[in-house]
Amino acid sequence: MPAMDLRLESPLDMHLHLREGEMLTLVAPYSAAQMAGGVIMPNLVAPVDSLARVREYRAAIEAACDPHVFTPYMTLFFRDYIREELVAAKDEIIGVKLYPAGITTQSEAGVRDFDRIGATVALLEELDIPLLVHGETAGFVMDREEEFLAVYRWLAETFPRLRIVMEHITTAAAVEFLEKYDTIAATVTLHHLLITLDDVAGGLLRPDLFCKPIAKTPRDRKALRQAVFAGPPRLMFGSDSAPHPRDRKECVGCAAGIFSAPVALPALAGLFEEAGCLERLDGFVSANARRFYRLTPPAKTVRLEEKDWQVPEFFGSVRPFLAGSRLRWSVAAASLAEE
Amino acid sequence: MPAMDLRLESPLDMHLHLREGEMLTLVAPYSAAQMAGGVIMPNLVAPVDSLARVREYRAAIEAACDPHVFTPYMTLFFRDYIREELVAAKDEIIGVKLYPAGITTQSEAGVRDFDRIGATVALLEELDIPLLVHGETAGFVMDREEEFLAVYRWLAETFPRLRIVMEHITTAAAVEFLEKYDTIAATVTLHHLLITLDDVAGGLLRPDLFCKPIAKTPRDRKALRQAVFAGPPRLMFGSDSAPHPRDRKECVGCAAGIFSAPVALPALAGLFEEAGCLERLDGFVSANARRFYRLTPPAKTVRLEEKDWQVPEFFGSVRPFLAGSRLRWSVAAASLAEE
Repeated sequence: MPAMDLRLESPLDMHLHLREGEMLTLVAPYSAAQMAGGVIMPNLVAPVDSLARVREYRAAIEAACDPHVFTPYMTLFFRDYIREELVAAKDEIIGVKLYPAGITTQSEAGVRDFDRIGATVALLEELDIPLLVHGETAGFVMDREEEFLAVYRWLAETFPRLRIVMEHITTAAAVEFLEKYDTIAATVTLHHLLITLDDVAGGLLRPDLFCKPIAKTPRDRKALRQAVFAGPPRLMFGSDSAPHPRDRKECVGCAAGIFSAPVALPALAGLFEEAGCLERLDGFVSANARRFYRLTPPAKTVRLEEKDWQVPEFFGSVRPFLAGSRLRWSVAAASLAEE
Repeated sequence: MPAMDLRLESPLDMHLHLREGEMLTLVAPYSAAQMAGGVIMPNLVAPVDSLARVREYRAAIEAACDPHVFTPYMTLFFRDYIREELVAAKDEIIGVKLYPAGITTQSEAGVRDFDRIGATVALLEELDIPLLVHGETAGFVMDREEEFLAVYRWLAETFPRLRIVMEHITTAAAVEFLEKYDTIAATVTLHHLLITLDDVAGGLLRPDLFCKPIAKTPRDRKALRQAVFAGPPRLMFGSDSAPHPRDRKECVGCAAGIFSAPVALPALAGLFEEAGCLERLDGFVSANARRFYRLTPPAKTVRLEEKDWQVPEFFGSVRPFLAGSRLRWSVAAASLAEE
């Protein structure tokens, strides 16, 4: 049997951490090698919470990878904004990202009181700017996402025209919830399709698999997989690729985040192939996001080929997801150029 | 108000990992400084699964700490034993410790098929040798202990005179189960009275708090505390103190185990004091074990005093439980000698 080829039109990573400085320079090319663009998270050490900061960060990203090859879709860090700020920023951002305070890496500036966010959220609805949400409460770590569904419900019912993205959903409950509101979409990571808490802490402890939201139960993973493989229109791929240097992972007080950008499309292709639905991969990694966000990304065809490779143990100081394992699919070299 | 003194008669640690070689030499004195004796776990790299190995290991422990100060209560690693072996060993062991294969550190030689253990368990019942059990299935990490209760039930009902110890219980379900059979006792660790999965993985990831069974939910911790503070006769303190050198903890593939021996009695005193039941500490750390195991440990009075101290960050290469925190109670120097 001849080896298969797989062509993806303008694949997009709808949830991506590119960091700053040397880390940005190190990791951005791995996203650019696979994706036509990505939604860039704004939780830098100093949050990206003004148009000036958006421009500054975009320039840094464009210096790290050619914007003709990879489009950074910028986000603003949620705070109280006035109308003029959002009007001015609207054409330069894809959405506003809300973090509950202290819930994940560099989220200390996030929301402490959800009773006080209404004015800004109403502006987002009026201006048709999507609201992207890290949806976890401060409750017990395994229950945080499910508990937060009440906030999503309130948002969807109070702001019925607001487009909302439940970021990196991990639970059967979130999958079920998603079906209830046409205005809500969700991103799903690669790693939450692959691992459960058993992989993180069931044998030896694996800081390289530690992320927020934490990986859940086998039942949750099954529900996520079933949903993604069924191909509903409002589930989008967002890697949540979140690199940390080794010394922030293999220590007491290990940072949350999995660096999956270098393996994203090859691992997804393997997963969809095993599930017998390779034809649905395009919807998950591109078409669904284009429709929900009304995006027209630059034309970029990424070609995957059936050619196995071993994931390196490290990219610079960062251990990638699936380090050391063999993947059946590779990104063909030709994919890097625009076609 | 004058500082209080607290005297404990022959405190015992009913579940203790002392390791071998340099690690044994490093850690044994911390148990000897607080306890009259301890139940020594047999899961060395080569399991302690013969009388010759018991004698060899006991000699190594006695070389590391004076047996007049600290009595090692030895255990055999569960395997198929014949009658003669158990008869010969009976007076030199306190029990036989059963591990399901692969469920925790150095348990590869453990039980793979519970249908085949009946003959040896029947001998333990006949010879009145307690069976100590690491009670976890190979299921989802948060459910393993509760799933294993079916095995305890089978043991208790099939071998009604067998004394069984549910080691290091962590769940509300286990607490509830314990009440059903007079022949079953349980050990509870210090750390499972203090931490939940939120402490391990709810913020930054804490390999120093990673242990098996993994810390559970706030509801489980509450049930454990309520049980321990109520002082039922079949709950015994077992630290499960399990030292690993830093390079086996702060890495990808971190070993399970918390080194709590140096803080055990001071932290327990603080906990019982806060709960307003300091008078019940003696039952938990000594009387209950003496009764269930029918032990008469050497007379040793350990005196605690209200004098705060800061737990060191390291003892040799090992980071202890509660490293860097201040404890209100100290073991007084006088406690080291027999009285």
